[in-house]
Amino acid sequence: MTHHVLDIESLALGVPETLMDRAEYWARIIESGQRPDPVLQGKIFFNLFFEDSERTRISFEFAAKKLGGEIVNFSTSESTYRAYETYYDTLSGLAAMAPDGVILRHSEYNAPRFASSIFKCPVINAGDSWRAHPTQALLDALTIRRVKGHIEGLTIALCGDIAQSRVARSNYVLLSRLGARVRIVAPPMLMPQEKEFTSAQRCNTIEEGIRDADIVMMLNLQKDRMQIGGMQSDSSYFKNYGLTPARLALAKPDVYVMHPGPLNRGIEISDEVADDPQRSLILKQTALGVPMRMAVLEWVCGA
Amino acid sequence: MTHHVLDIESLALGVPETLMDRAEYWARIIESGQRPDPVLQGKIFFNLFFEDSERTRISFEFAAKKLGGEIVNFSTSESTYRAYETYYDTLSGLAAMAPDGVILRHSEYNAPRFASSIFKCPVINAGDSWRAHPTQALLDALTIRRVKGHIEGLTIALCGDIAQSRVARSNYVLLSRLGARVRIVAPPMLMPQEKEFTSAQRCNTIEEGIRDADIVMMLNLQKDRMQIGGMQSDSSYFKNYGLTPARLALAKPDVYVMHPGPLNRGIEISDEVADDPQRSLILKQTALGVPMRMAVLEWVCGA
Amino acid sequence: MTHHVLDIESLALGVPETLMDRAEYWARIIESGQRPDPVLQGKIFFNLFFEDSERTRISFEFAAKKLGGEIVNFSTSESTYRAYETYYDTLSGLAAMAPDGVILRHSEYNAPRFASSIFKCPVINAGDSWRAHPTQALLDALTIRRVKGHIEGLTIALCGDIAQSRVARSNYVLLSRLGARVRIVAPPMLMPQEKEFTSAQRCNTIEEGIRDADIVMMLNLQKDRMQIGGMQSDSSYFKNYGLTPARLALAKPDVYVMHPGPLNRGIEISDEVADDPQRSLILKQTALGVPMRMAVLEWVCGA
Repeated sequence: MTHHVLDIESLALGVPETLMDRAEYWARIIESGQRPDPVLQGKIFFNLFFEDSERTRISFEFAAKKLGGEIVNFSTSESTYRAYETYYDTLSGLAAMAPDGVILRHSEYNAPRFASSIFKCPVINAGDSWRAHPTQALLDALTIRRVKGHIEGLTIALCGDIAQSRVARSNYVLLSRLGARVRIVAPPMLMPQEKEFTSAQRCNTIEEGIRDADIVMMLNLQKDRMQIGGMQSDSSYFKNYGLTPARLALAKPDVYVMHPGPLNRGIEISDEVADDPQRSLILKQTALGVPMRMAVLEWVCGA
Repeated sequence: MTHHVLDIESLALGVPETLMDRAEYWARIIESGQRPDPVLQGKIFFNLFFEDSERTRISFEFAAKKLGGEIVNFSTSESTYRAYETYYDTLSGLAAMAPDGVILRHSEYNAPRFASSIFKCPVINAGDSWRAHPTQALLDALTIRRVKGHIEGLTIALCGDIAQSRVARSNYVLLSRLGARVRIVAPPMLMPQEKEFTSAQRCNTIEEGIRDADIVMMLNLQKDRMQIGGMQSDSSYFKNYGLTPARLALAKPDVYVMHPGPLNRGIEISDEVADDPQRSLILKQTALGVPMRMAVLEWVCGA
Repeated sequence: MTHHVLDIESLALGVPETLMDRAEYWARIIESGQRPDPVLQGKIFFNLFFEDSERTRISFEFAAKKLGGEIVNFSTSESTYRAYETYYDTLSGLAAMAPDGVILRHSEYNAPRFASSIFKCPVINAGDSWRAHPTQALLDALTIRRVKGHIEGLTIALCGDIAQSRVARSNYVLLSRLGARVRIVAPPMLMPQEKEFTSAQRCNTIEEGIRDADIVMMLNLQKDRMQIGGMQSDSSYFKNYGLTPARLALAKPDVYVMHPGPLNRGIEISDEVADDPQRSLILKQTALGVPMRMAVLEWVCGA
């Protein structure tokens, strides 16, 4: 059976923990200055980023190369390939070449799942629409576990543009599965529908959302996906929902702050919070993204 | 002597067959799940795509990496490099770096041949203007030989925008050399001049062109090279020249359909034909492109 | 201590000579057709070109791969990343991934030095603003030493858009350190301020600047950085400052001509001079860029 990583929901029981443990193993290898075993030698992956994200693309490419694997980058914009052929035909052609794995980002809902029906090799979702970004959630969980020692029982507040955030969705599912109490914090028009995030506590004020939290995860405003009318200006957003030291003081004394990037400084987060070396896990998240993707690439290859 | 692959015409007697045999060898290695010997280890190729074609570029990069070679991608548009320097100076600078081989696509007539006078290493034409696309013809011939067992004596109809098609020109030359009877099928304004395709039978209706054919190779409408006036609309083109199941019924019962991509569905080919698992070789062509390019890269390196 | 290559000024005494000697070693390996030892195996570099330059980017990528290293290309434009986040956040994220080295080009003054305060790994400046382009100066010095046997005592004329040229600045510093007499030759409005190039002889006419020179290094007009008003037209520039055979006859009989590229033929240099196989070192510069960058990559890695 082919191992895909399409979303957290479709990962079998225990798989997230397995991936986190293996990522922890790779992280320690890297941190100790050792060279990882080239367990992916001879494997060639296609990096298919139909939606631009250099940071995520590079994180996967770096992870593959650290394990001796090769990457072929397919650089296109949706507008370019669509002028020539259908998404189906683009994928079918790439699938016919028979890569060893595919890493795919796309702005459309469930595009990676569609791809997994075409490719015979594993497909890793590097983010699709507002639906899922499973490797981000896995690296976030790993980051939390590293600083807190555990995830079960923690109160974790996801704050910001929840409605349009794939990061929030994947984190909600994963962190809930791992036993955390998840809150979602957003102004009403950025709050998702009731049928989603069903077990999360909903907070309309950031003060209520942050209170006694162990982890505050800020989400970036998806400006390019702002189809909802009536959005406040940047400055009024910051005034009402921006994470400041004063607000953070409402959380637990040993609270940590997370953010998937890119940061909109002065809109959803203040410089003082983003750059606080005691509280901010932002760079640790990026750092742990590499070993997490090493673990994911290794796992889908059955290596 | 340096081995170039500039067009089919300049390949010596027996070379296409040698390449096809070696590609067949690599194809079987791949299909059996074995890892190919890294015969190109230590070789570094420049992928110079002055005209965009992600599918072909990736096919070469994948092929090189499968054999342990390295690729350096030069990503530019003609407009960008032309704003700075001449084509001659761009190539001279790249040649001075002394790569082990060059894969070059360019919209201008014979640009790869010009490059072969500058580089001291092998130059592989990945498509130039309407003139030549030799590796496409080689992989097409390999595909035909696989399903038919031979090429000699087959009736092969090339249909569509012949006048502007490099795929048609290279296929005509190669398939004729290999003993096939080639027909060209196009509306008058897309028919090449009489001095070209001299031994091919010319058909102005698709019905006449397809009748009793063993292979029908559809070509895509080169919309971006449509300099000829008076072109019909897409729907009238489909009505008169599109490949439909009804028309395909005029061919031999065991006819196969080919297309180099990208597909213009509903313009030159119907969905039913393109997706017919019994008749369509389209994905097989793409699949065999990889071993064919492995064979070509290996051959030019004298490996 | 981390080895950076940010500019010539910050390289310790003897380092340029060490790098030139090692580059000479690699050049001979390459020229003899041997395969270089893979001394960078397991090293992964980030190629961060915030300003486009395919030739320089490829030169570094080719050099790294020749030594068994890996390159991850970060392809972006300044406008793209700025729309999302600050330069600081972009760099911080990339630094968190912990590459083994970074090659960075940027249009802003001292951007690589800023990067070296963020990355824990070596940073190599591949050109910033009008300030510095150290590997270009190193490869130029290597080229001169190859054809002249030494640099000390040579008269070297840098001609053209000195005020805005990073190549001129880095060459001036390096060639002066190595004992050459450096002249700068430019029309008044392209002449740098008095506080710069303090030990260079200033010449306002090209005739005066070239007279009895051992080396004439032409610089390209930085059209995209032409913020200074009153620039003459291309043809009047060529009439007054273009390098022609007649002007070159004023130099020493064994003079050599250099140019970092891209060439503006008919503006700063005539075809006869650029293409003179006896006098022009232009392609030799590009060729030696590869072993020089091999030496630089090796040195910063402490290999």
